[in-house]
Amino acid sequence: MRAVDLIRKKRDAGEHSREEIAYLVAGYTKGEIPDYQMAAWLMAVWIRGLSRAETIALTEMMLYSGEIVDHFDLPMKKVDKHSTGGIGDKTSLILAPIVAAGGLAVPMISGRGLGHTGGTLDKLEAIPGFNTALSLADFRRVLKECGMSLIGQTSEIAPADKKIYALRDVTSTVENIGLICASIMSKKLAEGIDALVLDVKTGSGAFMAKEEDAIRLAEVMVDTARRMGKKCVALLTDMDQPLGRMAGHSNEVIESIEILRGQGPRDLRELSVELSAWMFFLGERTKSVAEGRALAEEMIASGKALERFRQCIRLQGGDARIIDDPSLMPTAKDRLDVGSPKSGFISATKSRDFGIALAILEGGRNKKEDRIDPGVGLEFHRRIGDRVKTGEKLATIQYNSEARLSEAKKLVEEGFILAEEEPALPPLVRQIIGG
Amino acid sequence: MRAVDLIRKKRDAGEHSREEIAYLVAGYTKGEIPDYQMAAWLMAVWIRGLSRAETIALTEMMLYSGEIVDHFDLPMKKVDKHSTGGIGDKTSLILAPIVAAGGLAVPMISGRGLGHTGGTLDKLEAIPGFNTALSLADFRRVLKECGMSLIGQTSEIAPADKKIYALRDVTSTVENIGLICASIMSKKLAEGIDALVLDVKTGSGAFMAKEEDAIRLAEVMVDTARRMGKKCVALLTDMDQPLGRMAGHSNEVIESIEILRGQGPRDLRELSVELSAWMFFLGERTKSVAEGRALAEEMIASGKALERFRQCIRLQGGDARIIDDPSLMPTAKDRLDVGSPKSGFISATKSRDFGIALAILEGGRNKKEDRIDPGVGLEFHRRIGDRVKTGEKLATIQYNSEARLSEAKKLVEEGFILAEEEPALPPLVRQIIGG
Repeated sequence: MRAVDLIRKKRDAGEHSREEIAYLVAGYTKGEIPDYQMAAWLMAVWIRGLSRAETIALTEMMLYSGEIVDHFDLPMKKVDKHSTGGIGDKTSLILAPIVAAGGLAVPMISGRGLGHTGGTLDKLEAIPGFNTALSLADFRRVLKECGMSLIGQTSEIAPADKKIYALRDVTSTVENIGLICASIMSKKLAEGIDALVLDVKTGSGAFMAKEEDAIRLAEVMVDTARRMGKKCVALLTDMDQPLGRMAGHSNEVIESIEILRGQGPRDLRELSVELSAWMFFLGERTKSVAEGRALAEEMIASGKALERFRQCIRLQGGDARIIDDPSLMPTAKDRLDVGSPKSGFISATKSRDFGIALAILEGGRNKKEDRIDPGVGLEFHRRIGDRVKTGEKLATIQYNSEARLSEAKKLVEEGFILAEEEPALPPLVRQIIGG
Repeated sequence: MRAVDLIRKKRDAGEHSREEIAYLVAGYTKGEIPDYQMAAWLMAVWIRGLSRAETIALTEMMLYSGEIVDHFDLPMKKVDKHSTGGIGDKTSLILAPIVAAGGLAVPMISGRGLGHTGGTLDKLEAIPGFNTALSLADFRRVLKECGMSLIGQTSEIAPADKKIYALRDVTSTVENIGLICASIMSKKLAEGIDALVLDVKTGSGAFMAKEEDAIRLAEVMVDTARRMGKKCVALLTDMDQPLGRMAGHSNEVIESIEILRGQGPRDLRELSVELSAWMFFLGERTKSVAEGRALAEEMIASGKALERFRQCIRLQGGDARIIDDPSLMPTAKDRLDVGSPKSGFISATKSRDFGIALAILEGGRNKKEDRIDPGVGLEFHRRIGDRVKTGEKLATIQYNSEARLSEAKKLVEEGFILAEEEPALPPLVRQIIGG
């Protein structure tokens, strides 16, 4: 087999065998196939697409390029959630403690933010001292002690994905359903889980803005997980506006703690409970999703979920006092309120632009090397459906530097679309795929 | 400007500006854009295509990546020919002496063979001592002395093409009309010529087997040359069977000398005269192509063309005695006749397979690094339209090694298609494009 022939095959819209996919993934991981050949193949894949069988084979080969964590010493089911990302999406920080408190294990290997969306690791690292770079041994230990642990991709986990993802990033071959599925699923399945709940975002702040693309991605991921013997379901959820009131790293940790205290905005609480409920159900902790919802609510009301979060922060080296004293989190020096330029109903938002505004304030990354300022953020005071008057406060910008503030402000201001008619409110969960 | 954005643009079937093409070519040549980004871009180009304007811009930028040879000291017009390649296509060795003897200068920068077709440089190097690696200064000197010189691409000539071609070769991005045009034309226009005659092959032995693709390539190349102020015409010529009777490196030099002596096969003589005639006409040496034909015939009949070839061989370090004594050329030790498996009319040939058979005998390259055995070859005794009997000699294989001889023999034997009906004979020149 020769890489040049496999590139030609995909270029000409052919379908690869499992052996061909295995040859490419193994050859590239070992450095026998050079970057330039993989780059040409990735572009051919981006344009010609991957079949369902190719996607599953690619996921498997990327998974088997590394270690699969085992949890033989843990009697309970292992479950996880993955979100395709959006603005203010901090549900991982909420549902992991809820589900751990409810008796399942949540071994969560997460990613960093890039572009207009944030990443779970970056948010956790806003907590002073929190270490997301645990070894797999420490990851297992923390998981055993508190039922949850959140770390980054280690060198043992799907090294093929790590190498391929870095190449996709610089060759404009990121947004392809087959490649996205293989990248996500190879990492998630390496966690050694029994079940996975997918939160596939759709709308103006999602990577997959078009609902049909999001549905297709969800279907491929659910199918891939099931063919590999895992329980899986995908919730197609709304990202036409930020989730919750807060965006930014410190902000999102603080808002997550509010939810775990039984407070905080309704949409974020609802989605966190819904996702936790599906995790309980797929993890066979409850007999139905409805029972799962009740258990999740109970874990919040009893304070048990919040205690799990505190315990996890402590075990991963973080300052757990932030739970009771949010002022210990990094904050921005200055604040700027953004008022409504006219009166009317908020009918839509350009959520992606909110994410870009945050990155401009250094609360996000344009390049992988960019440093993040965890203290900066955005607070949203109004949501779709709200009636506002001219000058009324729509959002607050928390910033540390005047540089490019006006650019960020413009994006936030123009990110709220006003109309004269009261809009229909979008449902939070649009569809359950594979339920 | 960022390479990743330009890759995305072409991936999404966008059209590049001249500035964008300039950025990519210059950045890649200087090593600022890495191989993997260029590879992804090339694949996007292969699949999405290049517009006429993009092709012209790419040709120009690749041309300007290096030096353009000047011939201020030569009063006559400078003309050249380029062939897209086929089996037994040795016209360069014939027409360069004819046109030089007729009073024009032929500064020819040629390529090597790859795959099933041969290369002019490799053929010349079959002549003991012949040096195709002259410096540009020596190239100019030989040209001045005998009106012709044939060398390989130097490091000064279109370095962008050299680097991009090497990458296309290993990323399955070779056969694309825009990329082929830019690669050929950037080198040819660097020769400092006034006019260019293109011999675009079509048929079973050509790179562009489909006539419509060959026509499209011819049109793009003619247009590109003209927009850059050069006279240009393309002859679409037959490659449904080998040109002449001989294939292989020594063989083709010897057959070229036969033509220059006024002997040799009719098809090869006809095409060499026709191409020379167009060179005379575009180089303003004659008032018409018909006059050009007469001048070409005269240069052969008078022996002046042969003398030019002798002179050029001597000036480039070769053993000019081969002109009178072909036995001084490398030859193969053994010969094997291939007989017809049945009787009938030869209706077609699989010419590409003849080229592959020759490469199997080590008379061609599969990889760029492969060494060529100049002595091996194929002699074709019968042509399309000939009536043959069972066992009658179709071809002779000249070989040095038994290894893979049977494989080569099978390709040659099965390369002649026999039919009961007498076929129509294909015209040698199918169409003149831009004439």
